Amino acid sequence: MAGSFLSFEGIDGSGKSTQARLLAEALRAGGREVVLTREPGGSPGAEEIRRLVLEGEADRWSAMTELLLFNAARRDHLEKTIRPALDRGAVVICDRFADSSRIYQGLTRGDLRAVVDRLHDLVIGTEPDATFLIDIAADEGLARAVARPGKELRFEGMGLALQERAREGFLALAAGHPARFRVIDGARPPKAVAADVLAAARAVLDAAAPRP
Amino acid sequence: MAGSFLSFEGIDGSGKSTQARLLAEALRAGGREVVLTREPGGSPGAEEIRRLVLEGEADRWSAMTELLLFNAARRDHLEKTIRPALDRGAVVICDRFADSSRIYQGLTRGDLRAVVDRLHDLVIGTEPDATFLIDIAADEGLARAVARPGKELRFEGMGLALQERAREGFLALAAGHPARFRVIDGARPPKAVAADVLAAARAVLDAAAPRP
Repeated sequence: MAGSFLSFEGIDGSGKSTQARLLAEALRAGGREVVLTREPGGSPGAEEIRRLVLEGEADRWSAMTELLLFNAARRDHLEKTIRPALDRGAVVICDRFADSSRIYQGLTRGDLRAVVDRLHDLVIGTEPDATFLIDIAADEGLARAVARPGKELRFEGMGLALQERAREGFLALAAGHPARFRVIDGARPPKAVAADVLAAARAVLDAAAPRP
Repeated sequence: MAGSFLSFEGIDGSGKSTQARLLAEALRAGGREVVLTREPGGSPGAEEIRRLVLEGEADRWSAMTELLLFNAARRDHLEKTIRPALDRGAVVICDRFADSSRIYQGLTRGDLRAVVDRLHDLVIGTEPDATFLIDIAADEGLARAVARPGKELRFEGMGLALQERAREGFLALAAGHPARFRVIDGARPPKAVAADVLAAARAVLDAAAPRP
């Protein structure tokens, strides 16, 4: 049986990483093999590329170079972690995937939307079976992100205007791909959000299961 | 005045790095500012990516991931080193450029010729004004490369059949782009090769000079 590929997206502070973890726990409790992973990173090689991208000055790489490094990491992640897990029937839950490049390299850091899509088609190709967009107001996300014990503030230090642009970009992406995206209201207690995510994920997994 | 961008290509052991250096020395002696650089690498960021690509096991990255890493390094090299040097009128001499990706990721390591070209058009775009292909028989190149005080034998350890494929690939590229390529017989003493290279380079630089 082929597995299912689920991704979580959203602005920083949206709670998507927490939700990815809670969904992994719920599906494991139900007996599924779950591979919980994240981008950039998710394979030994991709984690090395992650360090190259996230360390040092924020303008160390241009948006285009950063996009190429993210795609190199994504390709390694896909080959070494995601595809093998899907091939053995696991559920892969990924905290950020190509949609984050569409927003951050394509829209807020650079103006590269068309390049991001063409590059993705050329070297990645794969899209998740379903993407959960954990939606939250930009100011609330920023307040949560800033309150966090701070590491990797690089992309989170971009300020409210960019958070708003990113949120709008994610919502527009979701509107453009309604079959793949599920927009979940993230401005509620984590348990309430998790219940919605789990119900939506079960519908996706049931639809993917072979008929008896 | 805009500068001139010259690249050297050829199989390992062809003598192209020696020739790149000799040309740089000759042009400097003639009063030109010359930036002698190489790929992968050539800027601080690209040198870090170089280490990521060249260290570790030879099959650590797939041909596609390797291609993305080389393009990330090339983009940084272009932005930080090559374009600024050309803008101030310097001669940039680069030991390997995109043609090496066409051969090594496109032809001998992977079967990615079409992807290499589409990726180049999408994220790099720039080609050298002239490319000197230092041509040598595959067995002679391999014998020279193996005799060298060994470092970076990674791509050189691929054996005679692959050297032959690479040589044929370079010659086919040159035949396909006759306006850009100069094929120089590398099976002669370095000084004789250097004299041919210098004459060809002077013709390119004279053609690029503004008319009085």
